[in-house]
Amino acid sequence: MYKLKAADWHPEHFKLEVANRVATITLNRPDRKNPLTFESYAELRDTFHKFQYVDDVRSIVITGAGGNFCSGGDVHDIIGPLTKMDMNGLLTFTRMTGNLVKEMRTCPQPIISAIDGICAGAGAIVSMASDMRYATPDAKTAFLFVRVGLAGCDMGACAILPRIIGHGRASELLYTGRVMSAQEGQAWGYFNDLVAPDQVLAKAQEMALSLANGPAFAHAMTKKCLHQEWDMSIEQALETEAEAQAICMQTQDFTRAYNAFVAKQKPVFEGN
Amino acid sequence: MYKLKAADWHPEHFKLEVANRVATITLNRPDRKNPLTFESYAELRDTFHKFQYVDDVRSIVITGAGGNFCSGGDVHDIIGPLTKMDMNGLLTFTRMTGNLVKEMRTCPQPIISAIDGICAGAGAIVSMASDMRYATPDAKTAFLFVRVGLAGCDMGACAILPRIIGHGRASELLYTGRVMSAQEGQAWGYFNDLVAPDQVLAKAQEMALSLANGPAFAHAMTKKCLHQEWDMSIEQALETEAEAQAICMQTQDFTRAYNAFVAKQKPVFEGN
Amino acid sequence: MYKLKAADWHPEHFKLEVANRVATITLNRPDRKNPLTFESYAELRDTFHKFQYVDDVRSIVITGAGGNFCSGGDVHDIIGPLTKMDMNGLLTFTRMTGNLVKEMRTCPQPIISAIDGICAGAGAIVSMASDMRYATPDAKTAFLFVRVGLAGCDMGACAILPRIIGHGRASELLYTGRVMSAQEGQAWGYFNDLVAPDQVLAKAQEMALSLANGPAFAHAMTKKCLHQEWDMSIEQALETEAEAQAICMQTQDFTRAYNAFVAKQKPVFEGN
Repeated sequence: MYKLKAADWHPEHFKLEVANRVATITLNRPDRKNPLTFESYAELRDTFHKFQYVDDVRSIVITGAGGNFCSGGDVHDIIGPLTKMDMNGLLTFTRMTGNLVKEMRTCPQPIISAIDGICAGAGAIVSMASDMRYATPDAKTAFLFVRVGLAGCDMGACAILPRIIGHGRASELLYTGRVMSAQEGQAWGYFNDLVAPDQVLAKAQEMALSLANGPAFAHAMTKKCLHQEWDMSIEQALETEAEAQAICMQTQDFTRAYNAFVAKQKPVFEGN
Repeated sequence: MYKLKAADWHPEHFKLEVANRVATITLNRPDRKNPLTFESYAELRDTFHKFQYVDDVRSIVITGAGGNFCSGGDVHDIIGPLTKMDMNGLLTFTRMTGNLVKEMRTCPQPIISAIDGICAGAGAIVSMASDMRYATPDAKTAFLFVRVGLAGCDMGACAILPRIIGHGRASELLYTGRVMSAQEGQAWGYFNDLVAPDQVLAKAQEMALSLANGPAFAHAMTKKCLHQEWDMSIEQALETEAEAQAICMQTQDFTRAYNAFVAKQKPVFEGN
Repeated sequence: MYKLKAADWHPEHFKLEVANRVATITLNRPDRKNPLTFESYAELRDTFHKFQYVDDVRSIVITGAGGNFCSGGDVHDIIGPLTKMDMNGLLTFTRMTGNLVKEMRTCPQPIISAIDGICAGAGAIVSMASDMRYATPDAKTAFLFVRVGLAGCDMGACAILPRIIGHGRASELLYTGRVMSAQEGQAWGYFNDLVAPDQVLAKAQEMALSLANGPAFAHAMTKKCLHQEWDMSIEQALETEAEAQAICMQTQDFTRAYNAFVAKQKPVFEGN
């Protein structure tokens, strides 16, 4: 079947590197703390969309250059123009940003964020839409939409953030726009671990490599179920998982694991 | 359009003060630790219902007089009569109490609880139905329905409490009716912060004032989305937020924030 | 009405003891760390199914013999045969395991796990599907399906685990299969408390006895609501609880509690 290769892509608005079946996306305007623009939003959305068709990427790391993750939508490039748009233009924008989250949640590869410094606005959302998150002790995460006169309901935050850190903490962050410290983020289950600045990207890539070397077909099924069971009853979820896991039991990786176990060896997964 | 003024209201069963667009509701039978009665339930329900029509309140604080928050449904005034009611009467009561929660969750103003001492039964529910919660180190919160032979499923507790503190902790509290200490409440994400008894009301009012001085139209949208996205799929939530945020982008507060930023000033929001 | 007595049952693949209206199920192949087999899965499923019809059990403890909880599906007895099955056989298996969770969540008695040592794979799921969990400081809980080449979406884990410990932590455990330490489990709300190895079963049984001596009709209603409100809107949940609690207000236990309060005595509940 026709497959794309992410290693062939040369995105214009961020860096993309593929090594060992791990794609690393680096937001790369460090002088401005890596803000997003109309163009980079769209290119990120389209890139995550295309990941479903590639055969050379099994997990994805997203990070920012120069000691910051992402400062969110650029004030001059995005907020200024938005103040002058009609509803048609505004919806085109808010649907584009929402679609970035949708593509991140529905691409088959697990996504791991490596976060240092500023992680604000749409940047905070990109971290929230990841599957796992590593941060440095100085990372500052702020869902600061309220600071520019907007609501906390941006790109799915009112749905997703409460399920990560609890409804009371999420409410405070979304109503106030205040910074969540890295230590709070770890205690609250937002960050999976805190890591020194010179190691946080390596840590995320190490986890990504470990997933890439694991049963990638099964990982994609895990991701799909985490997404689809969001608003199912427990009974529906049980039937969904009965089918999903039965499909995974027909993969060769399942047989490989069994054979390795019998031979007292470590299984080598091939993702099929 | 016709607007009410909460400052004109003089509720019979609790205190209501409006200052700086913050309404403070004080449960005020301190000799009995501020229990609820049939009449105070109904008046609270109707008061929260009417807040959607006022133009002088942008956030709400709820607290109790005399060092306690609320001891719940009064044993003599409520529990005694309930033991003698038929199903029609019982449902009228349980729907009235549930409607108090519904009105608290659907009024446009964020609600902040300031909790000292006893916070039990329906009192615990009122704190749970708030958007944010501050407590003193000695606050004792108990969903103690089981202690009077009832179920933990009271006024939405089985739906809402697990989303604030997690399903396992909520199960324990609802099955046993035991006290959640203030320290547990903070560690578990129930309380947003612990504050000394002589400062807890001030802290809640300070937060409420900060919200009242913020983009109130946007805050109401945040609250609506936190409520409506409760059982939506992620895709539905993303579209809901795309529309909600696009609407907020047409407010003057959004333009005010942008103009202030460009002028290197602090924005002054007007809630429209 | 026809009622069964659990005390009459003599399951073949695990121990079942009934005392003081508390049933204790002990997984009992300690030389193999209490793995599950096709037969023990089915017998557990059918036993939890039948608990809805008994009148001698009001709460259930589940534990493992010999210092371990459960090592999950046996590699030789289960995984080997699964690698050779067709889809029809695989679905029969995954639906059987999912039905064990369904029966645990829908039986009227609260279930309390007492966990020491290894708690892995389907064993971790059994603990997850319990209402409360006590563990020893050395308990090692691993949703390790990925280690055998499978997905984390096994027996409802992608739906249920995120609601207990949060979506970010659950994602890590399900993608990596790594051990959650007992200390992490307590901090994250998975375990309700940690208890020394020689006391963990007693602690779970003490809690179970306390529930059995409580308003058992109401406890069953709490459990039903925790289950059914999983994917309801807040409004639907409020109406569900209005009906559920009104029904509980017609129980004699409610009247017993009121009478005891008036007489300044401790209520004695009879579960009706």
